[in-house]
Amino acid sequence: MSKQKPGIPKGMRDFGPKEMARRNYIFNTIQDTFKLYGYQQLETPTMENLSTLTGKYGDEGDQLLFKVLNSGEFLKKVDTDTFNAGESKVLPRISEKGLRYDLTVPFARYVVMNQNEITYPFKRFQMQPVWRADRPQKGRYREFYQCDADVVGTDSLICETEILCMIKRVFSDFKLNDFDIKINNRKILTGIAEVIGASGKESDLCVAIDKLDKIGWEKVKIELQERGFSEGAIETLSPIIAQNDNNNEDWLLFLKKYLAKSEIGLKGIAELEEVFENLNKLGENQNHVVFDPVLARGLSYYTGAIFEVKVNGVGIGSVSGGGRYDDLTGVFGLPGVSGVGFSFGVDRLYDVLEELDMFPDDEVERTKIMLAYFGEEERDACLGIVAALRREGIAAEIYPDLVKIKKQFNYAGKKGIPFVGVLGSDELKNKTISLKDMTSGEQESLTLEKLIEKIK
Amino acid sequence: MSKQKPGIPKGMRDFGPKEMARRNYIFNTIQDTFKLYGYQQLETPTMENLSTLTGKYGDEGDQLLFKVLNSGEFLKKVDTDTFNAGESKVLPRISEKGLRYDLTVPFARYVVMNQNEITYPFKRFQMQPVWRADRPQKGRYREFYQCDADVVGTDSLICETEILCMIKRVFSDFKLNDFDIKINNRKILTGIAEVIGASGKESDLCVAIDKLDKIGWEKVKIELQERGFSEGAIETLSPIIAQNDNNNEDWLLFLKKYLAKSEIGLKGIAELEEVFENLNKLGENQNHVVFDPVLARGLSYYTGAIFEVKVNGVGIGSVSGGGRYDDLTGVFGLPGVSGVGFSFGVDRLYDVLEELDMFPDDEVERTKIMLAYFGEEERDACLGIVAALRREGIAAEIYPDLVKIKKQFNYAGKKGIPFVGVLGSDELKNKTISLKDMTSGEQESLTLEKLIEKIK
Repeated sequence: MSKQKPGIPKGMRDFGPKEMARRNYIFNTIQDTFKLYGYQQLETPTMENLSTLTGKYGDEGDQLLFKVLNSGEFLKKVDTDTFNAGESKVLPRISEKGLRYDLTVPFARYVVMNQNEITYPFKRFQMQPVWRADRPQKGRYREFYQCDADVVGTDSLICETEILCMIKRVFSDFKLNDFDIKINNRKILTGIAEVIGASGKESDLCVAIDKLDKIGWEKVKIELQERGFSEGAIETLSPIIAQNDNNNEDWLLFLKKYLAKSEIGLKGIAELEEVFENLNKLGENQNHVVFDPVLARGLSYYTGAIFEVKVNGVGIGSVSGGGRYDDLTGVFGLPGVSGVGFSFGVDRLYDVLEELDMFPDDEVERTKIMLAYFGEEERDACLGIVAALRREGIAAEIYPDLVKIKKQFNYAGKKGIPFVGVLGSDELKNKTISLKDMTSGEQESLTLEKLIEKIK
Repeated sequence: MSKQKPGIPKGMRDFGPKEMARRNYIFNTIQDTFKLYGYQQLETPTMENLSTLTGKYGDEGDQLLFKVLNSGEFLKKVDTDTFNAGESKVLPRISEKGLRYDLTVPFARYVVMNQNEITYPFKRFQMQPVWRADRPQKGRYREFYQCDADVVGTDSLICETEILCMIKRVFSDFKLNDFDIKINNRKILTGIAEVIGASGKESDLCVAIDKLDKIGWEKVKIELQERGFSEGAIETLSPIIAQNDNNNEDWLLFLKKYLAKSEIGLKGIAELEEVFENLNKLGENQNHVVFDPVLARGLSYYTGAIFEVKVNGVGIGSVSGGGRYDDLTGVFGLPGVSGVGFSFGVDRLYDVLEELDMFPDDEVERTKIMLAYFGEEERDACLGIVAALRREGIAAEIYPDLVKIKKQFNYAGKKGIPFVGVLGSDELKNKTISLKDMTSGEQESLTLEKLIEKIK
């Protein structure tokens, strides 16, 4: 075997101790809130049957699925004709499994497979990596984590309200204060399509309006024209775009009139109002909650509420989003399972917290104290000390090799260990430990009992 | 798209809320000990380059690697001649990545890639799934978790000793008392080979002796003959097999004589004695630590200590194991990185704890209280109560839909929620909550303050 300089596949990452401590902080923070609200954890396998995944994410999504080669004689079902017919004919004969592309489709598959055992409403959360064969670029990876929470089997708007509360709580735990939870309702978008005389074209309307933030109203207008919206439709739409500065209350007043002739539009308004009322009953206010009637998130399967969360002042896209869907599992033969869910993007949250320097000290994950020593006899005494510290639940290390004290200190310094206990002949004689605070540089002589007291 | 009955690939599993709570208990217990001893977490990507993985696990291992199909036009490098040449020629042209097969090779790859940034001795732990295209059978899966801890860059025997302590602590935390940590040293096996006049045949000796537990000494003798060991060699070996009842001390006495003429054999004994002495200095005894001079674990890359842990009284294989290796990273061009590590098998530990009914109550992961109500007005009051409970950090739910109280109670019962707070018109009037203890069936009327006090 030749010696090789090893690397990792593009778009993939290693996470060393520091990154892991920070990622665990994010996972634990989110998880605490999910559990507080009664969501329970689910994990699904990395690989799903391609029949489960294919056709669920559009043509582009199918292209981005990572496919796993069948084991053993993978070519046995490929004859020359099939080979000559190209990738699309060969693929189904050499690959039956693919890597999870998101957490929603596996969840839907799980609900269908376990429909009779599940207690409804079923509140599940899931925090696992997903894989997409996307072109890697800054902030976009081929392996990344999603943190989803969904509740299925109920259409109560209490669920939507609790999602707002959960988002607020997570951001409060992150000590992030400048963020907006944009909220809309798909029925309002449908109502708008009705009112402008473009019923049934909500999907086109959504795709175009979704770009408003990025390309502006003038270019959206051109796109709408290209998508076959009439001058009249676009003109009827424009007052909405002009109300940009409205607060939630003003918007509701405006839209009640604007959508007066659209039953479904008014239903959307009513749902939104109920969510706001529930928020009040839950003792919460509308701080950070921004109604945006043109928020679409491009995802056509939302049927009710739509959420999207952005942190202001950082050039990073949405860090959380979600919505209500009326038919999660229909594609797997189980119709009528309605639910609402949302997701946190761990990698983007990481970037936000890093950019704003908001990560807490990762001390929890670090060794609290290292024992250093001058000779063999001192080392033996240190073994007893390190064992005593660990019995007290204090994360402690002893430098394993008898090397110069400077090298031992270097190790502690590089690893960010806050305290070093040193044993020399004096300490050995006096049954004490010289404790050095690596931050302040201060040093003091302590008995083991006092040392434990201090470190705890 | 046709409706399909969905399934999951064979050898793969979903983990529902109950399994997840139990698996998290295992992960957290192991992790606590790793951290207490100064090990830091690492995660590596699911996919590695096939050039990193291939050739590291033997021919059988290469067969069991899950390979990922290249994205896009995966056939573009396959001409007709290559296609006709079969799998071995086609594979390298259609697949460049594979799924992680264990945590050791990715760790070695990480060490080489980050050799200049790492602080040595580098103590890392890693808890991630691995994938093997094995034939699925009871207790053997195609996706399963490993929990590894390794320290590299030191040959101090303190590390071996601390591994014994860590294993003991983890089992103590699991409240498992009847287990054996078998320990041996590869140098002792080498010494035995020398003494029986079969130097250089340690590998054959290991493979045959490794089967001693399974097939017995008579059949191992036949295998040794087949592998070319002389009658004399086998006869010289047999006293060792006969000492089966020795305690650690007796074994050391016996082997010091038996291996008197083998320098490396005596070195192995000395290392083992130092580990036992260190154990003493760390305030630990030799309980559960069983020296077994024919323990080999079949893995030829161990060069020093070898560990294996079994829980007695359950028909489940080893749940933990490991050893010292002199050359982790040589295959990636970085020679001389010595280390010692061990691994817990999460799935087997799960089976052990389940069989012995040793899982603790999973209450930590469960909702503590659900609010149930008779009408809309009561529901609104419940929203305020559930919010107040959550503000106190109490995991609480409100049943989201206005349905019969029996259905609400059913939900709480199935989900294992220990308390239900009920609001009817009386409670509403008196500003109280009827709290039902779902275990005892007792019911009492409480104010919100008293309720919080009680649940906390």
